Amino acid sequence: MSRSIRAVDLGLAGALFDALAQATRRGRGIERDSYGPGEQAGYDIIRAAAERLALEIATDPIGNMTMTLPGRDRSAPRILIGSHLDSVPQGGNFDGAAGIIAGLCAVGALQASRVVPACDIAVMAIRGEESAWYDVSYIGSAGVFGLLDPAALDVRRFDTGQTLGEAMVGQGFDPDPIRARRRLIDPASIRAYLELHIEQGPTLVRRGLPAAVVTGIRGCQRFRSAHCIGAYAHSGAVERPDRQDAVAATVALLHHMEQIWLEEEASGGDLVFTCGEFSTDPAMHGPSKVAGETRFVIDLRSLSTGTMDRMAKEARDAARRIGERYRVTFDLGATSYSAPGLMDARLRAALMRQLDRPFEMASGAGHDAVVFAEMGIPTAMIFVRNENGSHNPDEAMDLADFAVATEALIGLLTDFPL
Amino acid sequence: MSRSIRAVDLGLAGALFDALAQATRRGRGIERDSYGPGEQAGYDIIRAAAERLALEIATDPIGNMTMTLPGRDRSAPRILIGSHLDSVPQGGNFDGAAGIIAGLCAVGALQASRVVPACDIAVMAIRGEESAWYDVSYIGSAGVFGLLDPAALDVRRFDTGQTLGEAMVGQGFDPDPIRARRRLIDPASIRAYLELHIEQGPTLVRRGLPAAVVTGIRGCQRFRSAHCIGAYAHSGAVERPDRQDAVAATVALLHHMEQIWLEEEASGGDLVFTCGEFSTDPAMHGPSKVAGETRFVIDLRSLSTGTMDRMAKEARDAARRIGERYRVTFDLGATSYSAPGLMDARLRAALMRQLDRPFEMASGAGHDAVVFAEMGIPTAMIFVRNENGSHNPDEAMDLADFAVATEALIGLLTDFPL
Repeated sequence: MSRSIRAVDLGLAGALFDALAQATRRGRGIERDSYGPGEQAGYDIIRAAAERLALEIATDPIGNMTMTLPGRDRSAPRILIGSHLDSVPQGGNFDGAAGIIAGLCAVGALQASRVVPACDIAVMAIRGEESAWYDVSYIGSAGVFGLLDPAALDVRRFDTGQTLGEAMVGQGFDPDPIRARRRLIDPASIRAYLELHIEQGPTLVRRGLPAAVVTGIRGCQRFRSAHCIGAYAHSGAVERPDRQDAVAATVALLHHMEQIWLEEEASGGDLVFTCGEFSTDPAMHGPSKVAGETRFVIDLRSLSTGTMDRMAKEARDAARRIGERYRVTFDLGATSYSAPGLMDARLRAALMRQLDRPFEMASGAGHDAVVFAEMGIPTAMIFVRNENGSHNPDEAMDLADFAVATEALIGLLTDFPL
Repeated sequence: MSRSIRAVDLGLAGALFDALAQATRRGRGIERDSYGPGEQAGYDIIRAAAERLALEIATDPIGNMTMTLPGRDRSAPRILIGSHLDSVPQGGNFDGAAGIIAGLCAVGALQASRVVPACDIAVMAIRGEESAWYDVSYIGSAGVFGLLDPAALDVRRFDTGQTLGEAMVGQGFDPDPIRARRRLIDPASIRAYLELHIEQGPTLVRRGLPAAVVTGIRGCQRFRSAHCIGAYAHSGAVERPDRQDAVAATVALLHHMEQIWLEEEASGGDLVFTCGEFSTDPAMHGPSKVAGETRFVIDLRSLSTGTMDRMAKEARDAARRIGERYRVTFDLGATSYSAPGLMDARLRAALMRQLDRPFEMASGAGHDAVVFAEMGIPTAMIFVRNENGSHNPDEAMDLADFAVATEALIGLLTDFPL
């Protein structure tokens, strides 16, 4: 493949990022509300760009838009390059949008080089990936496969109180396929799904790398409502053997789980373990009291369902042992579960070959790609270095890094392994 | 000493406890509000009993009442048997009052046996020991020695908003000695201070013992406003080496301090270590976030100032080390300090000789005795077994246990070692 095919039109990319920011900046941050005017403003800008590239534009009943570069065999399964256009409230300009702009740049580069691909390549602008507005994730991608629980249509937006169903109708879309769990795309008609996304953590910044191939999207097993019941007591008058100290017991449990995490890491396993919420009861605790109760969250994420199951079992077993030792009762409660999404091995390997400094890493955050992978569609993702994390106004992606990752996508398209 | 001298009039004791409960029960609990009508109702009942015993009754300007059995040498330093009459809101009937009733029973037993002591023995009913109403401890005992900060007079009662000074005047007392930090008793005029109190923890219940001699009253060094600042981050996307996890760091600190506590216990040191308040920020934390901040309290109590200082230094050193390891910043803040109150060795030994099953233990909670000990007055305390802790309606002291402890006091008085 010649270098010229890979040339990314950074003028186009920069102009589109600027236009998106201008249209959807609200105060310091970006607000492209799922199925709201902010997201729609993004669609208008992307549609206009696709029209200028003379792509075939189609919108499905629930609002996802595909912009297709026709291939030689129009009936062959197509390649999708997708991402979402919505943002969280006071988010940044790159989370989501970068993947769509990369798709346009990729098909634009093929066009500019007069490359007619073997199959259709469609850039897919997906609706409602963020759960920040409706507390429902992957509305567009899950909806397209009839996977979305129809109850999602009754979920109310956190600020306006409007239901998702009402918002869809308000934007001119039709929630009926979701209500009927009807598939809008046959998975067999998709040859592969590719997604470029900014990295949401600091790994690439720390390693000084512009891009990384994603090994998979971590699943999550979460004890959302864990608590520990001990007994309130005078901190001076009740000695250790008589205490039922909920804080001490919870500290012991979390410390133990951290040790197990370190062992898992040392043995090469993929795992992140987090307690992000921990509190004694403000109505009952006191500076001179032994705490009689704690509430906390345990969040386990891994590319391996087995690792998550083993850690969840370890947490339950340890809670029982430590509970006895501290004379308290743990109730870790139910776990919520989302499956890991594994990327296609051949696509991963092919993408790695496109990078001068090949590097692979897991994605801790969820992406639409996980839905496509769940459907059995060969799926791949590439991360672009990004400073300051995502979901905040300080997202910072360098266009040079964006070009590295987009060039890798173009290279993959022109030398497709499947 | 003959058994007959030691005979405690349990009829008198039972009647006084009943009268107090009847006069001051509010719903399920007892409410004898410091410098309020509840406390005063207690004083009325105790004064009437002292009158029936023909004791010499005196009330000092700030409301403390002494009920004196004259001794052979009226000018010799006297022995005080003291305690407080107030209770916390919704408290129990025994915390405080037991010590005054024990004093009346002790002098009553001497009278009944026609024993004229060498010096005056005065039962002292002390005002305002509990900090529950005004957030000021030891009002009566500290006030009597000119030790109370005059600013205490401006502290407002938590429920009515009345200041302590206003309440004192309202009850017919004179806050001027407090304002002037004037001593109302010369410590040299007190030969010894003795206090009987219910145990506020479960040690005697667990050990099956009716009473214990108190070795000392633990001091307290408290980090009241400790916090840890890390950085909020995505729990899935940010891996361990990049985290600044405030919960993980705080857990590591508390776990370390518990290990040090276990070592201190194993080497025979006196210490209790408690974190009774711990929380992430409800406005900022989230189930899928690494926590960027924790707030917590560390409460260290010991009979030894050296042990507390060493533990506080250990906490600061460990916070620095662990902070570096976890890339977070601990700010443990200032410590509040109250000195331990050590009981007189000869009085302790003499009280131990009065018990059939001698047992000594530290007091974790504070008592008026700590003020007398601070003044250099030989001080001793005896604990009575009590179920369900104190400061709650379920305090439960058996009169038979009360008799064991009160008999020990009487025995001490008739064979006084100082």
